Amino acid sequence: MALLVQKFGGTSVRDIGRINAVADRVAASVADGNRVVVVVSAMAGETDRLEGLGFEVAPRPPSREMDVLLSSGEQVSVALVAMALMERGCTARSGLGFQARIRTDGNHMRARIEEIDAERLHADLDSGMTPVIAGFQGINSRGDITTFGRGGSDTTAVAIAAAINADECQIYTDVDGVFTADPRIVEDARRLDVLTFEEMLELASLGAKVLHSRSVEFVGKYGVPLRVLSSFNDGPGTLITTEERSMEQLIVSGLTYQRDEAKLTVLGVPDVPGVASKILGPIGEADIEVDMIVQNTGADGSTDLTFTVRRADYERALEILDGVRGSLGARGVEGDDHIAKVSAVGVGMKSHAGVAKRMFDALARENINIQMISTSEIKISVVVAERYLELAVRAMHDAFELGTDASTEETW
Amino acid sequence: MALLVQKFGGTSVRDIGRINAVADRVAASVADGNRVVVVVSAMAGETDRLEGLGFEVAPRPPSREMDVLLSSGEQVSVALVAMALMERGCTARSGLGFQARIRTDGNHMRARIEEIDAERLHADLDSGMTPVIAGFQGINSRGDITTFGRGGSDTTAVAIAAAINADECQIYTDVDGVFTADPRIVEDARRLDVLTFEEMLELASLGAKVLHSRSVEFVGKYGVPLRVLSSFNDGPGTLITTEERSMEQLIVSGLTYQRDEAKLTVLGVPDVPGVASKILGPIGEADIEVDMIVQNTGADGSTDLTFTVRRADYERALEILDGVRGSLGARGVEGDDHIAKVSAVGVGMKSHAGVAKRMFDALARENINIQMISTSEIKISVVVAERYLELAVRAMHDAFELGTDASTEETW
Repeated sequence: MALLVQKFGGTSVRDIGRINAVADRVAASVADGNRVVVVVSAMAGETDRLEGLGFEVAPRPPSREMDVLLSSGEQVSVALVAMALMERGCTARSGLGFQARIRTDGNHMRARIEEIDAERLHADLDSGMTPVIAGFQGINSRGDITTFGRGGSDTTAVAIAAAINADECQIYTDVDGVFTADPRIVEDARRLDVLTFEEMLELASLGAKVLHSRSVEFVGKYGVPLRVLSSFNDGPGTLITTEERSMEQLIVSGLTYQRDEAKLTVLGVPDVPGVASKILGPIGEADIEVDMIVQNTGADGSTDLTFTVRRADYERALEILDGVRGSLGARGVEGDDHIAKVSAVGVGMKSHAGVAKRMFDALARENINIQMISTSEIKISVVVAERYLELAVRAMHDAFELGTDASTEETW
Repeated sequence: MALLVQKFGGTSVRDIGRINAVADRVAASVADGNRVVVVVSAMAGETDRLEGLGFEVAPRPPSREMDVLLSSGEQVSVALVAMALMERGCTARSGLGFQARIRTDGNHMRARIEEIDAERLHADLDSGMTPVIAGFQGINSRGDITTFGRGGSDTTAVAIAAAINADECQIYTDVDGVFTADPRIVEDARRLDVLTFEEMLELASLGAKVLHSRSVEFVGKYGVPLRVLSSFNDGPGTLITTEERSMEQLIVSGLTYQRDEAKLTVLGVPDVPGVASKILGPIGEADIEVDMIVQNTGADGSTDLTFTVRRADYERALEILDGVRGSLGARGVEGDDHIAKVSAVGVGMKSHAGVAKRMFDALARENINIQMISTSEIKISVVVAERYLELAVRAMHDAFELGTDASTEETW
């Protein structure tokens, strides 16, 4: 007898067979006495297809029209899911962004939700209706369609859950939950029962593609209990909570990695104030996102500054540095676009020393050279050569005893 | 310096190459100093694909959701056309049914337009904008998406032209205009320069698929000058006017035909009042459309009643008649689902006797048996065996001297 938001991603609605499976699942929830709001993404591949059409028309398609174009994908899937629910005897009705009154700011292709009409949803639910809401899309104050960026349907689901004060927001995906590491790399990777939202936020933003990171922010802000679970298999999935400590008391909850990274180093720049901004300013102006930044102070009054960017931005970043190098008085510029980042995440490490040491020891045992290190309260990241990525993840998974055979109550 | 509505059908926007050609054409119109509202259909094949998905989910998909599903097709094409226009330096903006405030009644899948927000379109045009409006879709008073049935984008275009008092509504298609007969059947079929809207209405409703018949009704009601022309070739097309007489002064303007017809005859029913409604009542209740009806009075106090239906409804109609036959005291039921209807249309025939005779003579010369005859003020239709269809059309085309070699000023 719960009030639930159930969100189904693209692979969960990729064809009519899968849409029928989604409808079976929702109809069973409703039959159990739950009140359910369904949120649906576009059928898998559809957003790519539409985006491709846009880029065929214009090399830089105007973002307002891209939002009109892309949002049609969710329009198709909500109609089909609503039909499939009605076919199963549910009273269902599809709702697009403008109908569900999902009000956003004016930023096309990366809009933020400002308000959702909870009253309307409550009225529908009270009348026995199962609303099927299009993810990823809203409407701005001018009545234009806006979208939230890739993965934005998660944000729709969590925002709706917050607005209607749902008991749980269930994100159905093609995985069984959140794992201690990528199961394709680590054989004994284990599904986590519970994870804090800070941990999930780090895992999502670090490339564990289970959840859109903005949706996790909503969890933190509004305290919506979130559950990631499989639309293909039954199982409890992983619960994301705002509880400070997970019940499992792990030091490290999970490992994540990002493969498509590149690093750039400006060599021998004068070690004076303002030099970092002279280097990173033009990079930011070119809309290149910088991730890790490391600076070593040299003995001779000069320093090396290294930072990482997405691999797709590497060549462009290199050109920019070559352009500003002369005015900086730098000795040279070098780079490497075959690096990867591996990170350990866990709220437990806040209060435990020795996590970094254990991690570095594990990598050293495998003779993996650490090129860069970055730490935060609940995360340690290292950059290694890309060819060592899988080896590094497996070594760390063993070192932190995250596998299925490990005790879940270790207290070292 | 005209105010124009330019409507492009599915084949005119079937791929990005064609969309670019549409944008070239509109941009040229705007560059010539015209103010243009563009109306676009879904890319060719898209509505069929979406409809197919709906029927895969539910054998009788709910019409509200079908409208959500199908209207996504136009959403894609308006976005792409607007992008292509902006790529050519035009200030363009796509508008969906809810944004252009195309208010309709509540009938899903065959809604009628009640109101269009002309002020908003005028404001956009005055600001130098070229609005690109989605055809086929509107919104009802509850905020639900409605659609107008196949060919409904023509209706959108004509309704907008009426609302903004456009100088001309141009319907771009894959043909060069309206022809005296189907050029695939009649080699020397001729493009008509001008046609009255009553003639066009008969031609459209009789199966000449150039225009949606409801859009032609708008022409009559609001006096919007309508022009049918090719988006592939240059040329003047055919102007549809409300002028009573076309400048060409033809007796018969054009021939049309319907191939997928069937006829049913109830034999030997008592010739008493009410018998026709006892036969046709159950047919109408089964949502089977009846076209022609003929009744012959017999000498023995009984009569035969014959009517035609779409071929797809033939078997069902036959079953219904078999069911009611006993209670009618009829001698029997027979039918033929290999017939076709051929019609001659022209405002000129109102004031000319002898049109029917010329038509029947032409068919007799070819030994084509006429199975049924039906006439109206500006139309004569005959039913013949389907195998004679092409022969009948060609014979009539010659008889009425409609071909390219014929004088356009005959006065017989």
